[in-house]
Amino acid sequence: MELVPRKRLALFSGRSHPQLAREVAEHLDVELGAITLREFSDGEIYSRFDQSVRGKDIFVIQSHAGPVNDAIFEQLIMVDAAKRASAKRITAVCPYYGYSRQDRKASGREPITAKLVADMLHAAGADRIIAVDLHSGQIQGFFDGPVDHLTASQVLVEYLRAFAPRDAVIVAPDAGRVKVAERFAQRLGAGLALVHKSRPKGTANVVTALEVVGDVAGRHCVIVDDLIDTAGTVTAAAELLRSRGADEIWVMATHAVLSGPAPKRLMDAPISRVVVTNTLPVPPERAIAKLEVVSIAKVIADAIAAVFEDGSVSELFQGENLS
Amino acid sequence: MELVPRKRLALFSGRSHPQLAREVAEHLDVELGAITLREFSDGEIYSRFDQSVRGKDIFVIQSHAGPVNDAIFEQLIMVDAAKRASAKRITAVCPYYGYSRQDRKASGREPITAKLVADMLHAAGADRIIAVDLHSGQIQGFFDGPVDHLTASQVLVEYLRAFAPRDAVIVAPDAGRVKVAERFAQRLGAGLALVHKSRPKGTANVVTALEVVGDVAGRHCVIVDDLIDTAGTVTAAAELLRSRGADEIWVMATHAVLSGPAPKRLMDAPISRVVVTNTLPVPPERAIAKLEVVSIAKVIADAIAAVFEDGSVSELFQGENLS
Amino acid sequence: MELVPRKRLALFSGRSHPQLAREVAEHLDVELGAITLREFSDGEIYSRFDQSVRGKDIFVIQSHAGPVNDAIFEQLIMVDAAKRASAKRITAVCPYYGYSRQDRKASGREPITAKLVADMLHAAGADRIIAVDLHSGQIQGFFDGPVDHLTASQVLVEYLRAFAPRDAVIVAPDAGRVKVAERFAQRLGAGLALVHKSRPKGTANVVTALEVVGDVAGRHCVIVDDLIDTAGTVTAAAELLRSRGADEIWVMATHAVLSGPAPKRLMDAPISRVVVTNTLPVPPERAIAKLEVVSIAKVIADAIAAVFEDGSVSELFQGENLS
Amino acid sequence: MELVPRKRLALFSGRSHPQLAREVAEHLDVELGAITLREFSDGEIYSRFDQSVRGKDIFVIQSHAGPVNDAIFEQLIMVDAAKRASAKRITAVCPYYGYSRQDRKASGREPITAKLVADMLHAAGADRIIAVDLHSGQIQGFFDGPVDHLTASQVLVEYLRAFAPRDAVIVAPDAGRVKVAERFAQRLGAGLALVHKSRPKGTANVVTALEVVGDVAGRHCVIVDDLIDTAGTVTAAAELLRSRGADEIWVMATHAVLSGPAPKRLMDAPISRVVVTNTLPVPPERAIAKLEVVSIAKVIADAIAAVFEDGSVSELFQGENLS
Amino acid sequence: MELVPRKRLALFSGRSHPQLAREVAEHLDVELGAITLREFSDGEIYSRFDQSVRGKDIFVIQSHAGPVNDAIFEQLIMVDAAKRASAKRITAVCPYYGYSRQDRKASGREPITAKLVADMLHAAGADRIIAVDLHSGQIQGFFDGPVDHLTASQVLVEYLRAFAPRDAVIVAPDAGRVKVAERFAQRLGAGLALVHKSRPKGTANVVTALEVVGDVAGRHCVIVDDLIDTAGTVTAAAELLRSRGADEIWVMATHAVLSGPAPKRLMDAPISRVVVTNTLPVPPERAIAKLEVVSIAKVIADAIAAVFEDGSVSELFQGENLS
Amino acid sequence: MELVPRKRLALFSGRSHPQLAREVAEHLDVELGAITLREFSDGEIYSRFDQSVRGKDIFVIQSHAGPVNDAIFEQLIMVDAAKRASAKRITAVCPYYGYSRQDRKASGREPITAKLVADMLHAAGADRIIAVDLHSGQIQGFFDGPVDHLTASQVLVEYLRAFAPRDAVIVAPDAGRVKVAERFAQRLGAGLALVHKSRPKGTANVVTALEVVGDVAGRHCVIVDDLIDTAGTVTAAAELLRSRGADEIWVMATHAVLSGPAPKRLMDAPISRVVVTNTLPVPPERAIAKLEVVSIAKVIADAIAAVFEDGSVSELFQGENLS
Repeated sequence: MELVPRKRLALFSGRSHPQLAREVAEHLDVELGAITLREFSDGEIYSRFDQSVRGKDIFVIQSHAGPVNDAIFEQLIMVDAAKRASAKRITAVCPYYGYSRQDRKASGREPITAKLVADMLHAAGADRIIAVDLHSGQIQGFFDGPVDHLTASQVLVEYLRAFAPRDAVIVAPDAGRVKVAERFAQRLGAGLALVHKSRPKGTANVVTALEVVGDVAGRHCVIVDDLIDTAGTVTAAAELLRSRGADEIWVMATHAVLSGPAPKRLMDAPISRVVVTNTLPVPPERAIAKLEVVSIAKVIADAIAAVFEDGSVSELFQGENLS
Repeated sequence: MELVPRKRLALFSGRSHPQLAREVAEHLDVELGAITLREFSDGEIYSRFDQSVRGKDIFVIQSHAGPVNDAIFEQLIMVDAAKRASAKRITAVCPYYGYSRQDRKASGREPITAKLVADMLHAAGADRIIAVDLHSGQIQGFFDGPVDHLTASQVLVEYLRAFAPRDAVIVAPDAGRVKVAERFAQRLGAGLALVHKSRPKGTANVVTALEVVGDVAGRHCVIVDDLIDTAGTVTAAAELLRSRGADEIWVMATHAVLSGPAPKRLMDAPISRVVVTNTLPVPPERAIAKLEVVSIAKVIADAIAAVFEDGSVSELFQGENLS
Repeated sequence: MELVPRKRLALFSGRSHPQLAREVAEHLDVELGAITLREFSDGEIYSRFDQSVRGKDIFVIQSHAGPVNDAIFEQLIMVDAAKRASAKRITAVCPYYGYSRQDRKASGREPITAKLVADMLHAAGADRIIAVDLHSGQIQGFFDGPVDHLTASQVLVEYLRAFAPRDAVIVAPDAGRVKVAERFAQRLGAGLALVHKSRPKGTANVVTALEVVGDVAGRHCVIVDDLIDTAGTVTAAAELLRSRGADEIWVMATHAVLSGPAPKRLMDAPISRVVVTNTLPVPPERAIAKLEVVSIAKVIADAIAAVFEDGSVSELFQGENLS
Repeated sequence: MELVPRKRLALFSGRSHPQLAREVAEHLDVELGAITLREFSDGEIYSRFDQSVRGKDIFVIQSHAGPVNDAIFEQLIMVDAAKRASAKRITAVCPYYGYSRQDRKASGREPITAKLVADMLHAAGADRIIAVDLHSGQIQGFFDGPVDHLTASQVLVEYLRAFAPRDAVIVAPDAGRVKVAERFAQRLGAGLALVHKSRPKGTANVVTALEVVGDVAGRHCVIVDDLIDTAGTVTAAAELLRSRGADEIWVMATHAVLSGPAPKRLMDAPISRVVVTNTLPVPPERAIAKLEVVSIAKVIADAIAAVFEDGSVSELFQGENLS
Repeated sequence: MELVPRKRLALFSGRSHPQLAREVAEHLDVELGAITLREFSDGEIYSRFDQSVRGKDIFVIQSHAGPVNDAIFEQLIMVDAAKRASAKRITAVCPYYGYSRQDRKASGREPITAKLVADMLHAAGADRIIAVDLHSGQIQGFFDGPVDHLTASQVLVEYLRAFAPRDAVIVAPDAGRVKVAERFAQRLGAGLALVHKSRPKGTANVVTALEVVGDVAGRHCVIVDDLIDTAGTVTAAAELLRSRGADEIWVMATHAVLSGPAPKRLMDAPISRVVVTNTLPVPPERAIAKLEVVSIAKVIADAIAAVFEDGSVSELFQGENLS
Repeated sequence: MELVPRKRLALFSGRSHPQLAREVAEHLDVELGAITLREFSDGEIYSRFDQSVRGKDIFVIQSHAGPVNDAIFEQLIMVDAAKRASAKRITAVCPYYGYSRQDRKASGREPITAKLVADMLHAAGADRIIAVDLHSGQIQGFFDGPVDHLTASQVLVEYLRAFAPRDAVIVAPDAGRVKVAERFAQRLGAGLALVHKSRPKGTANVVTALEVVGDVAGRHCVIVDDLIDTAGTVTAAAELLRSRGADEIWVMATHAVLSGPAPKRLMDAPISRVVVTNTLPVPPERAIAKLEVVSIAKVIADAIAAVFEDGSVSELFQGENLS
């Protein structure tokens, strides 16, 4: 028996962020695959593909949106089911990759949960991962297979080019994010500043003060981070910038986690605009007025198409998607 | 440099069922180890051992109580942290092992999530597992290392010997549980009956009727199962037994999942007593009056001690802990 | 260099059951692949593919017929040779999967040999398994890759529809097989009964008596099991059924192991017909008169074709091939 | 809880060569561990340790004597059971390691079964291997863990020193065994000769002739090989040596496989003495008069003791046990 | 047989930095283990332990000093030999971990060589790693086992407390190193500044300018980095700082790679002092006058002792050794 | 989405032997793929594919020419980059496979570095290996995937048929290489002789003398080996052959390592011709006049084409490429 094989793409979505999955499917001009997903009464997740996946090139898209453990678990179960149903290749698409901040031991006897998530995706049967703006580029090395690391920076820089004044200053909200801020500043030809924690001489063991390094007085400041979770860091930075004479202050990030006090803090802070992408869903009750959401769907769709067609993903980003 | 090594046991508990962990620790006459466990605002779990685990024989006890995904994830994170903190050996103690009913594909394109849980425990770094009354004994084969499979049947049979009448009939609530019911019947020298689904001739594709096989009229029936989840199966069985003339009806199971409608169903059904163990916590609002809970803590503690001291676990159970 | 790949199927048979392999090949309309297989004088097996397998989709069919260790070993050696000869994908086809009853520890310090067989197939290089009516569905989870679990129940139910009376009763020969018997009963709209072991009160530690549960007097009974090995279980059940007034008694099973005393026991028992499939060869000296063999070859051939062509296997069985 | 661990050795024997296991146990001054081993009627092997192995340092001794597949399989099952019963460390002791001649592809599309055996021992759970005189030293590299490679050459050379004349010539029976023969010759200060296959000019594709290289006329020749299987090679060599004027001819080997025509061939050949060790059992019907068996038991026992006590194995052999 | 095991430490050094190994051994009060290490004429490395390592706790210390591939390879070979010689546990001690800057893909189709090194150490048989000041903390997650991540920051901060003026400013030489600089600044209660690359508006695609952010005029600046390789970054930063009015300028780093133009650049730059540790050897011809070397040997020795004795490593560093 | 996949070959060369890679590419009629390869100033290797490799069938050719560790490391880095860049399949082509002589423990506590190299290629992501004339055929078993083992014997035998006299004698330069010499002798219908080490009686522990076995006086001798490293073995053999009256003496080998004293030794020895292949580059300063180099490029190219097109490799060699 002999035949010419055909390669077929099928895109399935978990339940954490169906709107994004639908947008991605539209960009790809495919239907989302049919799958049953539900909880049993005791909270266990049930999954069953409602169409054959045998021999197909399967993409399982699931943003690790809260409740994050359920979202990850659901994706793992879908991947396991696809593996056992003889999918040819399985790509876990994680627009927001959970636990990415726990990517190293910040203190003794901690886990490295970002590595654990990678190991679990591998154990479940994922052959490859697509993710957007990982908290650190090193997470690519946690997975023992290809990782296509996409970035929202193009769409976010485009936004700034369109709407921000020409003399804006890019501000890193803490010392660990200066690298990303520098990249935005370079793309825009903008200035750079940094907020960092300091410990005044003689005040042992207590970190109390924030400092600005760089010129911000009278300037339009754009605080750039990879994600906004409780918004504590960016709103503290904004307060400080304002006290140092900053003019207008925007906040920009790829991932809008916006947990707990984030909406109230952002509303109360001297911030006039918060620009994020839709890697995560923003429930209506957290969608404050000053929030602007730009879509990442086309970026993900283009990457999926390139993976499926053996095109180049790094060309999609002119090489800016990696570190 | 040379020294005589010492072996040290440390027992840490996740947050799903601290009461059971405390009981186990008391039986072992040890303190529960100090560990920080909490959620961040976005739902991600943080874990850190507050004491050194280097070189120790670590037992991480966590019942996969609802919300089950969080409970499993927390245990995985604890295991990962213990591995990276140089624990000598890590045993995952799972009084209730989640997803154990999804131990095979009951239909095409389903996952085998019980295997996925085993793979994840392995990937996180668990060297061995202790579990109680797995839904099927084959799950032991899912883990690529030793599994000590404990059983509550001794304490449950003991209960029946003490409180049930001598002529009780053991009833399997469905065709898949007859084996376990037979074992109870043999131990007690009791009769055996079975409830099963039938499809009357000519009623294609619709399973409608339950049937009893065996003599139950005028008898004290004890329905035996490994777990009670929504209680649909056991209450339907009880109704049927009553309609066939059963006298008093008890329900007995190891794991009291008791999700969703279970409390109400059990209260409304012609069941006079529900006997379970404490492998799972029963929140007060679900603890109906007819519920009796016997403790499994000593069984688990004895097994942990035997594992630590290289004693025999199967002797603890006279060989009845396995299939 | 660039080319359009072609996918080629090749089917090779071990020596345990060549007749079945030939039937499967005929259904597929392919030639069995050429391979050298022989023992050296000291019993070591030698294998060499006599045609190129490079890049091919290889199916290695071997029923684990006795001498079972030789049969398994031969299949492993064939798989190893195919892997090293650069086969693209290797499917181990096991019409009868050996050691499937040792799928859990029935007592302490036993092996789980069914898992060991799966691990060995994996270590040798098998990418996937096709098997028929595994002793338990959980064995699918023992293999870290796709398992296509076929069932003979369609052909066996078909047989009963054609030849058994309408009021037949399906009988499980022991407590562990009630689930399978229930499925037959449902398909046929037939009644259900069960034979089980009991231990009369006061006769500690000795299991002596068999009991029937369910109505069998004056009925045509069909004892259903997955396999008949020494026939001890089914013939004891038949004796009991007869003593309880059963009319005609048939025995039905997928796998005809028929070892040791089986032929004599079956001949001597009050059984009028034994219906099996040809997953295992029945040597002429064991082929008793009352034995009827229905062929499983088309079921296996259809599954191989579906696997090769990326069709759906579960559709072949309307979802009945799994648990 | 804290304790000082104790290390305990337990030695279990498969059924292929119990006499050797008993000798080894005597040298170690231990009892052989209690274990149940038997075949079911269908040929499947059943194994159960009859004493606790938890935490112990287990040695599973099994010579891969014919029927070789059964012997290997039995050892794998014992290892699997020991792993699941929580043995601390498992050493597979293989006095004769089966399939060691299939250690490379001698022709296309062959397996490398010696590697497969190593992979299977690893998959079953063996942590380390002890073997005697592997057909090639490279087999040590097939196992992903420590291999203690013992040699019988000391006891065999000792035999020659005691019984052979001072001017004996060591003869390699084919081109692939010259290295071993050279080692014997060096140890004894003896001469070296070699028998090899040649193909006279013009006789394409047919290997017909054997040639001797080296002086053998009027000499006492000792043909040295690692094993004697069908004895075809050594008896052909002996015939040739005799035709070239060799005086007395002995044959010496570690492993007495002695399959098929070996006893008759050896009896008929111009060989006056066949010296082997007891790595394999020689059944009485194959124990020809000219066969002398020296015991390897002490060598194995010393190695086991060194492994258990963390002593040096290579010192036992003054470094001669390896290539 | 039964015995009380003893745990024995043995420390072996590769040839890349024997002086450091000797210092570590002195702090531990042990002899360096005897090992043969040499190159064959063709460049292949030969290794042989000259003493038994069976059952020992082995530490293989090798700084990945240039020629870096040889250094890594030699360590791998030593680890492989220790594994095959039955070492109980093998710790690869890497004072300087090579390729740590290639810890992510900075551009498409690059390797992640830092992960490859971790994978190779794992494949060779290393159970754990000890390393000093990895380029990024995430590298800990690359190794599938415990990593003890030590830091030189205590000894370096101590140096600054002793010798630097109280009003020194800590300067990060590029945007990616601000986090480390901030930690030094906090410990000392010092100010913080940063040098970064900027791209003036309208100069597309060409990165031309360096900028300072923060106050440096008239200040004593200490540029802090994890390593000094060609010294291009730090000397460019120093030039810029000088042009912006910095008073005295020091450079401080853990790892003194000092390759190629580094000595000349450092000598020519407006830098008065270069402070490094001895994780790497500095050959005499590269040891410029302004270089000061503080020893890391005690830090490594303390960690080895803690690992061997199951003490806490993180306590050695009060938790500062991790991110 | 659906498409017909196309298979694309891409051949990339490391820097150890670009001339051979170019020849292979010419035979295949493809361009060598574009890749950046260079050392950083500190000796770390940098690699980046300058064209997309996504979905391609990649062959990474690198002879393990000195400095051997750098050559191997560079190949590993290329393989790692190809894996992370989503190559479909990666074949490591090793015309000369380094460390192949360290394929077993020749003495206690040595590594098996040839296995380590295989493990490292596997860890980096190589799916398969192509190698020429491995020092022992068993090395094929070290790699857990297909190994295409090519041989230069056809081109070398062809050379002898064309240029050597009909009555040449093939000489093995030591006892371990007789097998290969025998194969040459058989192909040519030539005689066979052997040089081996002997230890005269009474000269304990000192190996001093070489002996010839076989007739060489007045004959044209061709010493055959797999590689010439320092040429010590072959030149000593040549001296001995001359002293025993050999007429003309040639040396023939696949791999021209020619390290250290080799050129001078070969020039000074009574050898009139040295015939090798170009699996390794011979730098001009080592290319002595009597050296003749025949090309292996077509052999490698044919194998690559067969692998890519799923043709048979063993047919290319009529089965002579394996042991």
